[in-house]
Amino acid sequence: MSAATRVRVAVAGCGYWGPNLIRNFADHPDSDLVIACDAKPERLVSIRRRYPACTCTTDFDEALSHPLVEAVALATPVSSHFRLARRALEAGKHVLVEKPLATSVREAKALVELARRRKCVLMAGHTFVYSPPVRKVKELLAKKTLGRIYTMDFSRVNLGLFQPDVNVLWDLAPHDVSIALYWLGRPPLSVRAQAKNFVRRGIQEVGYLSLEFSGGIWVHLHVSWLAPVKLRRVVLVGSSRMLVYDDTENVEKVKIYDQGVVRNPETFGEFQLTYRTGDIHSPKLDSTEPLALEISDFLRAIRTGAKPVSDAAFGLEVVRVLEAAQRSLESRGATVRL
Amino acid sequence: MSAATRVRVAVAGCGYWGPNLIRNFADHPDSDLVIACDAKPERLVSIRRRYPACTCTTDFDEALSHPLVEAVALATPVSSHFRLARRALEAGKHVLVEKPLATSVREAKALVELARRRKCVLMAGHTFVYSPPVRKVKELLAKKTLGRIYTMDFSRVNLGLFQPDVNVLWDLAPHDVSIALYWLGRPPLSVRAQAKNFVRRGIQEVGYLSLEFSGGIWVHLHVSWLAPVKLRRVVLVGSSRMLVYDDTENVEKVKIYDQGVVRNPETFGEFQLTYRTGDIHSPKLDSTEPLALEISDFLRAIRTGAKPVSDAAFGLEVVRVLEAAQRSLESRGATVRL
Amino acid sequence: MSAATRVRVAVAGCGYWGPNLIRNFADHPDSDLVIACDAKPERLVSIRRRYPACTCTTDFDEALSHPLVEAVALATPVSSHFRLARRALEAGKHVLVEKPLATSVREAKALVELARRRKCVLMAGHTFVYSPPVRKVKELLAKKTLGRIYTMDFSRVNLGLFQPDVNVLWDLAPHDVSIALYWLGRPPLSVRAQAKNFVRRGIQEVGYLSLEFSGGIWVHLHVSWLAPVKLRRVVLVGSSRMLVYDDTENVEKVKIYDQGVVRNPETFGEFQLTYRTGDIHSPKLDSTEPLALEISDFLRAIRTGAKPVSDAAFGLEVVRVLEAAQRSLESRGATVRL
Amino acid sequence: MSAATRVRVAVAGCGYWGPNLIRNFADHPDSDLVIACDAKPERLVSIRRRYPACTCTTDFDEALSHPLVEAVALATPVSSHFRLARRALEAGKHVLVEKPLATSVREAKALVELARRRKCVLMAGHTFVYSPPVRKVKELLAKKTLGRIYTMDFSRVNLGLFQPDVNVLWDLAPHDVSIALYWLGRPPLSVRAQAKNFVRRGIQEVGYLSLEFSGGIWVHLHVSWLAPVKLRRVVLVGSSRMLVYDDTENVEKVKIYDQGVVRNPETFGEFQLTYRTGDIHSPKLDSTEPLALEISDFLRAIRTGAKPVSDAAFGLEVVRVLEAAQRSLESRGATVRL
Repeated sequence: MSAATRVRVAVAGCGYWGPNLIRNFADHPDSDLVIACDAKPERLVSIRRRYPACTCTTDFDEALSHPLVEAVALATPVSSHFRLARRALEAGKHVLVEKPLATSVREAKALVELARRRKCVLMAGHTFVYSPPVRKVKELLAKKTLGRIYTMDFSRVNLGLFQPDVNVLWDLAPHDVSIALYWLGRPPLSVRAQAKNFVRRGIQEVGYLSLEFSGGIWVHLHVSWLAPVKLRRVVLVGSSRMLVYDDTENVEKVKIYDQGVVRNPETFGEFQLTYRTGDIHSPKLDSTEPLALEISDFLRAIRTGAKPVSDAAFGLEVVRVLEAAQRSLESRGATVRL
Repeated sequence: MSAATRVRVAVAGCGYWGPNLIRNFADHPDSDLVIACDAKPERLVSIRRRYPACTCTTDFDEALSHPLVEAVALATPVSSHFRLARRALEAGKHVLVEKPLATSVREAKALVELARRRKCVLMAGHTFVYSPPVRKVKELLAKKTLGRIYTMDFSRVNLGLFQPDVNVLWDLAPHDVSIALYWLGRPPLSVRAQAKNFVRRGIQEVGYLSLEFSGGIWVHLHVSWLAPVKLRRVVLVGSSRMLVYDDTENVEKVKIYDQGVVRNPETFGEFQLTYRTGDIHSPKLDSTEPLALEISDFLRAIRTGAKPVSDAAFGLEVVRVLEAAQRSLESRGATVRL
Repeated sequence: MSAATRVRVAVAGCGYWGPNLIRNFADHPDSDLVIACDAKPERLVSIRRRYPACTCTTDFDEALSHPLVEAVALATPVSSHFRLARRALEAGKHVLVEKPLATSVREAKALVELARRRKCVLMAGHTFVYSPPVRKVKELLAKKTLGRIYTMDFSRVNLGLFQPDVNVLWDLAPHDVSIALYWLGRPPLSVRAQAKNFVRRGIQEVGYLSLEFSGGIWVHLHVSWLAPVKLRRVVLVGSSRMLVYDDTENVEKVKIYDQGVVRNPETFGEFQLTYRTGDIHSPKLDSTEPLALEISDFLRAIRTGAKPVSDAAFGLEVVRVLEAAQRSLESRGATVRL
Repeated sequence: MSAATRVRVAVAGCGYWGPNLIRNFADHPDSDLVIACDAKPERLVSIRRRYPACTCTTDFDEALSHPLVEAVALATPVSSHFRLARRALEAGKHVLVEKPLATSVREAKALVELARRRKCVLMAGHTFVYSPPVRKVKELLAKKTLGRIYTMDFSRVNLGLFQPDVNVLWDLAPHDVSIALYWLGRPPLSVRAQAKNFVRRGIQEVGYLSLEFSGGIWVHLHVSWLAPVKLRRVVLVGSSRMLVYDDTENVEKVKIYDQGVVRNPETFGEFQLTYRTGDIHSPKLDSTEPLALEISDFLRAIRTGAKPVSDAAFGLEVVRVLEAAQRSLESRGATVRL
């Protein structure tokens, strides 16, 4: 793309995730990194050094008022997503908000509505729906490779990074919830959640979610900031095959197990069951960086009006589940229907 | 021990687990395997062949009426534990019952009482409390190596073996519940359980339990007969160290992670937290077969009156938790206090 | 089979491996374990206890002179194989000799000739050629799944067990040599070997072998009694696929990697090469105990005259390679042609 | 450092490794990336884009003639190292040459001499001697943690990257040879090498090296461009402990095994040996990027005259071993003394 037609982007928030957005927008052929801002000036030093052409500022308004900036990407603390995204949309900018889109359905809906009115692209940064293994599993599900789905069990645990403003559900669960919604293509019927805090007051660090989907599909999530070994693992159990997606694996991220339990129809009881075990298959995955694909989707939406996979409506669905989980949590694990 | 003083044993139930009891009683220097019985004669063929000196019968009464038989070990279906154990105790035999001791607190209590009256040894076969890694962790907890315990997360999943008469909670959870009770030395304050069935009617195949113990310790269990990869894993998180016990590992079954989160007392928020990561240590474990140790404990109790680790009272505590879990399950996951 | 037609067997040598032979002969429907002998009486105690029907003796002659004994299995030290096998054959017994068949080609040939004259079955205990993963790889090679074979790299290392009478080449390499000969169906053209000792005088504990086969196939073996982690791993590289057979894996012992280097024919140099990586496939393997299959093959040969896979001629081929390796070792790693 | 005192650097060769040098020189507080050059203009596109302040050229002379450029880093094909390094030194530039320093001892010596005469820093890019796990092992060896060293077994295999101009020994072995020399602090007494090619003519793709060091230490290297699974593994066996360094591990790169064989002094034979197995320990490693440390060492040498760890003399020692290996290879694996 010529410099003229490249999308000029401002990135707000240069903490843990922001630099990845900055690198990708700087490298992408269809975008120019114009502004990077963060309230903490020390975070701008290395960016200024590595991207001399990029304006580094502690003032978010500079991004909004900059005439050339068409799009703003937000990697700021979760609690600021709504406020900053709203201001960016009001300034007529296209917006990519890091997950979760907002901290309540009400806020998320307001952003969706505002984006519609301002004819701006609004996207939620659910990067995993762009990751090759997650897309491969989506393909396999579409082909009914696993048969009828029984359960999905997600584990996303590691040591830290404690968030200052949201609990572990709002920090880690958005990933798994977005993957589950993307795979199943529908929202859950009900949600239950339990979580506890051990180190700090008031902000839960370990949580378990249980989601029920139509078709009797049962989905469990375990999220934690307090674990010795990093886990990024999902186990899918279907009527004809089983699958493990382990994102910590370097090579075999997805493994399909050709096994299951065959129930002898005319009779009951264990002795009529056959445990079928077969080959294990690990499909080759393409190795593109998910964030690069997400950003391409964002830039394409801006230039062509195409609907991004992780659009605001999708982001809203994820927030709906998280809000229900939070409500369940506050009512001591009661089942919350959606 | 001389033949005269060796404990003569009958083993009932020669399905999956029984042959292990038979082999251990046959090999143990302090016991003689006298009788093996199973309702299914085909299960006796290989036993008869391998232990020509052992009487093989389909009639449980033969074991009870045999004058030399001092002790009976039960590896029969769970639903038969109470009935058969009661008959054996009434016949004045010492009894080792496979886990769980019974299917209700009422039954378990009745057995405990009956054993007391008949002055017979009654033991529940919670083999894991005799396993070297479980004992090593117990030692470490006694030494406060992990500091204050926050959470324990148990996973015990694999493909099958569907039980004909009990759900996955009663089949698999007794192991993890017995380990948790042994490690913590006290019963939980409350229990919650969820479980579902997918292949057969009425008997749950996948379950999640949540136990709260005094001291704010939170214990989770995931048990399943529907999983592609066998997991036997427990993660313990403490205030000063973390630990993983993975029983599927050949060598490093126990790993101690010298890591944690240090909270800067005078302030709040993530930026005051330090994530400490240090060395990882895997202690050497002795390699004795747990079942051999369990049987030694049983035989010692018979000959010396010593109290076994997995005595009937311990088996009763486990049943108490399982019964509470079953009640929670039947009340759609409500919290059940003990 | 009726007791009348079952092969009555004596097992000599009850150290590390003998008890496995004893268990398998005792359990096999077509054989009866009649005698177990070992020069060390303490080794017979547990056998006498577990197999009351079996005569336990320290006198090998009892086995030879026993009128009912048709077959003798030898699990004695390597240096005794030739002498004891010869005596057993001279006594008209069928003989299964643990690997290696003998410590020299001359001895091995003499045994083959003697067995022929006495019309006795003589088998070498190369158990691996009966193991399901090794047989699966043989199948795949027959189907040319890997294309043209380039290299095979074997690692068989662990801590101990130091042999008293032979070096690590004669102790561990027979396994890998037998696997390579079985897979390739032909002897190597040449052999080179290096080995050293560190703990004891005169008996090498760590060794490397290099074998060249027709077709330009290059095979390497690493054997060691001095390694922290047990390895049982073979990597096969072919022109169209690659394969790893790891016998320490519980489930995925064989993995086929659909990858390779494609050479652009019309030109040379790296920039014309394509590195093809594809799916990874782990075929299901049958789980029969290899030793049980080996023993069935032995008993079948005795009763039907069928040729066993691991017959004496095969055992002789393995000894031929080992003797060449020993010669290479003694000539400081010179290439020895066969 | 102020811009005035920062070392201005030119990087030549922007293929596989060059961009890492570029990124590190660009990010390092003590250096400025001034010029990047590569004969292939297409390789300069993304660099020009990411580092607008850096001059990108296809003409190496621009780097040499540039008045501000004090140092040149070479990541060009191995066969060009000598010629380009010589020209850079003659132009009075400090030089960092990617490993190996040159393709012959004669060339390497000439560069060492030239650097001495021109009073320029000359460094060989043996990055591994800067890597935290390699340094940790060096520390442990210094503390005699493993006791007397018996063997080191290196595996460095993966699929590709076939080099156009040098065989696998010259491409991969420099890493392991540099690690071995760094750990042992002395050159080997003798070298043997075998290697073969399967895909291309004339350039070996799979190789095995055997090095003997004083003290009876035996070091083996396996290097290959034709392997299904990437291995970066070294096993060290010592008289009192054993160690595994696996660079493909994310967390436990170094593991110390407290085990070994204890030889009962007064007698001989296996039954007097004890196999001691103990705890396994994985020390925490610092996570600095090795290349950043290497570059700091280079810049420090330029500014302070301090001797870098991977100086030209060290690079020469590595070339000496490689040349000996090449000679051994050409004399069909004969032992070559150094």
